[in-house]
Amino acid sequence: MSDQNKNNKIISSGEQSNPVMVEVTRGNMVESIHRAAYAVVDSDGKVVLSGGDYEKVTYGRSAIKCLQALPLIETGAADAFNLTDAEISIACASHDGQPRHVDTVAAWLKKIGCSADDLECGSHLPYHTQSMIELLRSGGSETALHNNCSGKHVGFLTVCKQMAVNSKGYVKYEHPLQQRILGAMESMCGLDLGNAPQGHDGCGIPVIGVPLANIALAMARFADPSDQPESRQEACARITKAIAAEPFMIAGSDRFCTKIIEATKGRALIKTGAEGVYTGIIPELGLGIALKADDGVTRSAETLIGMILKKLQIIDPATAENLKSVLEPPIFNRAGLQVGQIRAAQNAPF
Amino acid sequence: MSDQNKNNKIISSGEQSNPVMVEVTRGNMVESIHRAAYAVVDSDGKVVLSGGDYEKVTYGRSAIKCLQALPLIETGAADAFNLTDAEISIACASHDGQPRHVDTVAAWLKKIGCSADDLECGSHLPYHTQSMIELLRSGGSETALHNNCSGKHVGFLTVCKQMAVNSKGYVKYEHPLQQRILGAMESMCGLDLGNAPQGHDGCGIPVIGVPLANIALAMARFADPSDQPESRQEACARITKAIAAEPFMIAGSDRFCTKIIEATKGRALIKTGAEGVYTGIIPELGLGIALKADDGVTRSAETLIGMILKKLQIIDPATAENLKSVLEPPIFNRAGLQVGQIRAAQNAPF
Repeated sequence: MSDQNKNNKIISSGEQSNPVMVEVTRGNMVESIHRAAYAVVDSDGKVVLSGGDYEKVTYGRSAIKCLQALPLIETGAADAFNLTDAEISIACASHDGQPRHVDTVAAWLKKIGCSADDLECGSHLPYHTQSMIELLRSGGSETALHNNCSGKHVGFLTVCKQMAVNSKGYVKYEHPLQQRILGAMESMCGLDLGNAPQGHDGCGIPVIGVPLANIALAMARFADPSDQPESRQEACARITKAIAAEPFMIAGSDRFCTKIIEATKGRALIKTGAEGVYTGIIPELGLGIALKADDGVTRSAETLIGMILKKLQIIDPATAENLKSVLEPPIFNRAGLQVGQIRAAQNAPF
Repeated sequence: MSDQNKNNKIISSGEQSNPVMVEVTRGNMVESIHRAAYAVVDSDGKVVLSGGDYEKVTYGRSAIKCLQALPLIETGAADAFNLTDAEISIACASHDGQPRHVDTVAAWLKKIGCSADDLECGSHLPYHTQSMIELLRSGGSETALHNNCSGKHVGFLTVCKQMAVNSKGYVKYEHPLQQRILGAMESMCGLDLGNAPQGHDGCGIPVIGVPLANIALAMARFADPSDQPESRQEACARITKAIAAEPFMIAGSDRFCTKIIEATKGRALIKTGAEGVYTGIIPELGLGIALKADDGVTRSAETLIGMILKKLQIIDPATAENLKSVLEPPIFNRAGLQVGQIRAAQNAPF
């Protein structure tokens, strides 16, 4: 890997066959398999552990929300609005729409003089099943506050306030906010992204194609920002501290990200993204992780990042045993009987 | 392929790389890919079209519910209880829990002197979002009637009544009902399945591992049962006629199976199963189809069976154009903007 832009070569069809990393059993047979690529990189850009095609150009999706939160700190917005760890954590979150998530976003909107109408992320029902049931039973409906990205979007509105730019259309590629985020991504990923593949995320903001190893490099720079400018060092430290302090906010009580950050006491700051992307920041090792399941399936991305954390000894064997139902979860049928398991593939290159 | 049992060889780890059949785009890039295997087989067991490892031992899951419904006809239960096309279709269904599905199952249960308490499938909320919202808003809760397999299970109870066996434990491998179904599967798939891999389905009944091409053979025998015993011929004809007449019952108004059966006016009787399995019965060609996405993802299985139906000219180019949003669906973000597409892979071996 290098810090140079590789002419944004697009590996479009994925005909190369990444290794089978995760398998799904049912009864006495493997029923489904998942291929993936991953890279573990240090802050100098050295790939220290990898599998599959880690140069594959990948949309980081929600797994790079910490990058998109850098302007929230670096513009001075976080100080100007006295943002808490909970607020900074939810700015980096894909949350489940549990009451504390929704209340946090609502209170933050009020603090900056905005309302849910200013959010451009769209609406969906809470992902957290019990919260969804309670919302509907009480006569409520989905709102933008329940959108899993609402924390990121209130963060965006806060930056617009601080930059004194009109927030209308803040999700668009051309908007000053998104251009500022693009600049932060370029410096953290070590690439000129002006001609990178692009599209739109589920919540409307741009997605930018970046080689997987360069996404890992950006995460390594969060883990060890010591060669970054001082303001960037401070921003990275504030964001990682907030996520470690408020793991509930990054996802939710039923979610893999929250459980692993809690179980490792913040030694592994991991974040899921749509289409089977995952990132990890390992401050004590100065390492960053990025992975993508070829097929976009979250269950395999979760098990694979667990495999990497075990390999890096961030999750030790005793902890792994305690977390077995999270890392290699059983599959239950509707009657509650265990019928299978999601697990590391028997021939995974680990 | 042969009708002989191949000592139930299990291809367990899937290290063989099936071709990329389906790709998912976002913006100007392919974001995710799906590998799969499929076979199109005639009733003599000749493979007329295939891709990937079609000998792979596969759980047919819900895609073989028509096989599991054979005893419903062959025991005389369907005649004894005057079953309608709607009831026989929902016995082969994975339905979405829309009101007409739930009402049909409830009325059928009453007709045979049973109640929802006799169903052993477990409960879940309706898959059909608007029906789920209305259920919860009206103070309702999930019941076994909403389970997508409830039609199959009331069919099972009906067979138990007709066989005059205690229905308690009817989901178990050892129960006379499941043994009868196993026999029907063996004769239709052309294999001794006594030592085949097995496990439990989401609704509790046994799953049996069968090579993909032998699942396709069973579907071919539904399409052209002329070399089967007369009672089997009649049972196959009654089931295919019922599904063609009542496509809503097999899935639901928003669902791929229902839309394709309706659009082809019953020329293609297709059925989804969990973990990316699909089957098809093409009566006019006397062909059966079976496919499995390696990764278990339904979106790719749907697009792949559409590709096969186009190749077989069951879906002609004009119909394909009308069905484009079903066969190769656009992906929308939360704001309703099209951001990508699920489509045939550019290099798919077709």
